[in-house]
Amino acid sequence: MEDFSPLIMERLDALAAISAEAGAITRLYLTPEQDRANTLVMGWMREAGLSARVDAAGNVIGRLEGPVAGSPAVVIGSHLDTVRDAGRFDGPLGVVTGIACIEALRREGARLPFAVEVVGFADEEGTRFGAALIGSRAFAGDLDPAILARTDAAGITVAGALRGAGLDPARIGEAARKPEEILAYLELHIEQGPTLERAGLPVGLVTAISGATRLSVTLSGEAGHAGTVAMAGRRDALAGAAECVLAVETRCAGGPDLVGTVGTLAAMPGAVNVIPGRVTFSLDLRSPDDAQRRAALADIEGHWAGIAARRGLALHHTLTHDAPSTPCDEGIGARIAHAIEAEGLPVLRLPSGAGHDGMAVGRIAPIAMIFVRCRGGISHNPAEFASLDDIGAGARIMLRTLRSLAAEGLPIGRKQA
Amino acid sequence: MEDFSPLIMERLDALAAISAEAGAITRLYLTPEQDRANTLVMGWMREAGLSARVDAAGNVIGRLEGPVAGSPAVVIGSHLDTVRDAGRFDGPLGVVTGIACIEALRREGARLPFAVEVVGFADEEGTRFGAALIGSRAFAGDLDPAILARTDAAGITVAGALRGAGLDPARIGEAARKPEEILAYLELHIEQGPTLERAGLPVGLVTAISGATRLSVTLSGEAGHAGTVAMAGRRDALAGAAECVLAVETRCAGGPDLVGTVGTLAAMPGAVNVIPGRVTFSLDLRSPDDAQRRAALADIEGHWAGIAARRGLALHHTLTHDAPSTPCDEGIGARIAHAIEAEGLPVLRLPSGAGHDGMAVGRIAPIAMIFVRCRGGISHNPAEFASLDDIGAGARIMLRTLRSLAAEGLPIGRKQA
Repeated sequence: MEDFSPLIMERLDALAAISAEAGAITRLYLTPEQDRANTLVMGWMREAGLSARVDAAGNVIGRLEGPVAGSPAVVIGSHLDTVRDAGRFDGPLGVVTGIACIEALRREGARLPFAVEVVGFADEEGTRFGAALIGSRAFAGDLDPAILARTDAAGITVAGALRGAGLDPARIGEAARKPEEILAYLELHIEQGPTLERAGLPVGLVTAISGATRLSVTLSGEAGHAGTVAMAGRRDALAGAAECVLAVETRCAGGPDLVGTVGTLAAMPGAVNVIPGRVTFSLDLRSPDDAQRRAALADIEGHWAGIAARRGLALHHTLTHDAPSTPCDEGIGARIAHAIEAEGLPVLRLPSGAGHDGMAVGRIAPIAMIFVRCRGGISHNPAEFASLDDIGAGARIMLRTLRSLAAEGLPIGRKQA
Repeated sequence: MEDFSPLIMERLDALAAISAEAGAITRLYLTPEQDRANTLVMGWMREAGLSARVDAAGNVIGRLEGPVAGSPAVVIGSHLDTVRDAGRFDGPLGVVTGIACIEALRREGARLPFAVEVVGFADEEGTRFGAALIGSRAFAGDLDPAILARTDAAGITVAGALRGAGLDPARIGEAARKPEEILAYLELHIEQGPTLERAGLPVGLVTAISGATRLSVTLSGEAGHAGTVAMAGRRDALAGAAECVLAVETRCAGGPDLVGTVGTLAAMPGAVNVIPGRVTFSLDLRSPDDAQRRAALADIEGHWAGIAARRGLALHHTLTHDAPSTPCDEGIGARIAHAIEAEGLPVLRLPSGAGHDGMAVGRIAPIAMIFVRCRGGISHNPAEFASLDDIGAGARIMLRTLRSLAAEGLPIGRKQA
């Protein structure tokens, strides 16, 4: 099988050069940079024999028609927008790999029993408007119209930005695809974590995109002078919060694929010589298994309530985010596993703790994801790196999977392990 | 015995009206407000029959001469400067009580075998220049000349501010008193803590001004994506810091009068979905017993090192402050205890966890302190409050102590329990 990883890398470099900031990669939703990236990608799509267009939400869509006009499609996708000062792989890798795979299929004269589309979603990161997955939610027909009123840091609404990009916000619903149009959604993405690197493997098979719960927590005690209030008379909110942080760590250590993180913590009033009277902190809890996540959350809340009661602290928490797990399709996963084995590699199954466009597309189609190892697990950072060899392995596995779906039909039942 | 607490309260109110901010009490070192307060206090001193002057550091000193010119003096003092948005008792209470006591002694025709001085120290809080006790350190001949170059928020140096107040920075050393000039230093101050209130007592006898050690601590681990790094693969600096906070609490709970506080804590990068890679926090450790403080510090550092090693974190800490305990004089303390008993009250002995001018004056004279209950232990706040009755009790105890020292001589040996 040919190695098209140099072409992929060359195209990633070309996309990386399109940025709002010199010397960094920053490509936000509905900006001139995104428009230039879309134009570049559509050129590659057309070179590969695909028809190409920008949909009503700003997503780029390339399509190779199937046996009849309007044949249902296997969609390969990822996103073209980035965080600020991003790496070059997160998102674009899946889009340019999709184009390369279809180009390879055409060159070898494969006749596919379905249409194939490659989609470059326009807003996965949510960097500009603080709402992630606008592109793929529009694609899945699951976009709350209220999102049109959200503003960026400059006060520009999504609706205004759509108009600025030559799109009509009143028609964003036209980006929605029907479930019967989409046979399956396949995405290749860097892992953005250290699991594959630690296992010494170039690729892995994603079992699910983990569900996530986020809380904002406040513990209130009593501030006081660090020198004059005896230890026994204290209601120290930070000491209580310290116990809460450790309760999260202990509970999550008990579950496979369960992760819990306290990422922010602020102690008030925050003076060297004052006992903290109030602490706020965050919880981010994820699992590919919704029941496991809910059980862990209930246990953690119970631990926290006990800590607060014992210490005379007031505990309040509010839910700031809650998303269920999106399971990957078992049938397609089996084909990907065979493709990995055909590369002479063992199949490492892992959940995606990070969110992806598949969470949105999963509402209208079975989804599957292939992860490619990234150095140090680093992402959202200029140091993000995946090797030519690993990208080549990922692309070949994607191509083998497409061939297998074409040859053997779509074994899709959305049944899960 | 007469009740001069209404006079004391009236004078506290008059001082409270002298402020840099309308509707708040803010009186900083070497400001026009301090000059007005000094003038007011010198007027009261002269009414009470004292000679009055401002010394080379800006302290106000009133003196009632002893049997011969230049007789050694018993000094009663506290400070006239405040924090921003202060209460009206912290500092001024000790100064106006001293004046009232001497006025009472003169009215009753007491003949004292020593001179008496009342001192209003000019900078105890350190609010303006970030260095506390400038006034009392100058008085004790213990001022580092380098302090003259310190600047306030506006960039004005201590030297410049002295000149602005009509004082000569080159002559600040002339504020220094010789040990043979000062027989004893007595200070009455609000407790600034909850111990007396919890014990239901208006006054307490201070055993020592606690020594204090402060550290700035950094724990470094590895930042990572909250969704993609398994619990077992984490080096979470915040989870490590949580253990460190609890180690401080546990160790300090074991020692009488030992207190340890983590008052500040910052987790970086500080995002809901990122594992904290670095945490900085402070430690404030105090004890009236230096050996106890040092032993606790060594234990805590040992615990921290173990936590860091077990978690693969790098631990660094730097000493930001270290002051030994200043013991109060036992002989004078016995006289104060008798005076408390003469009020029909039990004697509650307690350390001062907060710093006071006696820490500086203690270098040249035996010191003693009387604490007055303050409501809720609240200080450095407009809500600071001590009752007329409690102030009256404290003032009578101060007066009885002076009478006892006059009648029975000075039992000063600086021996400690």
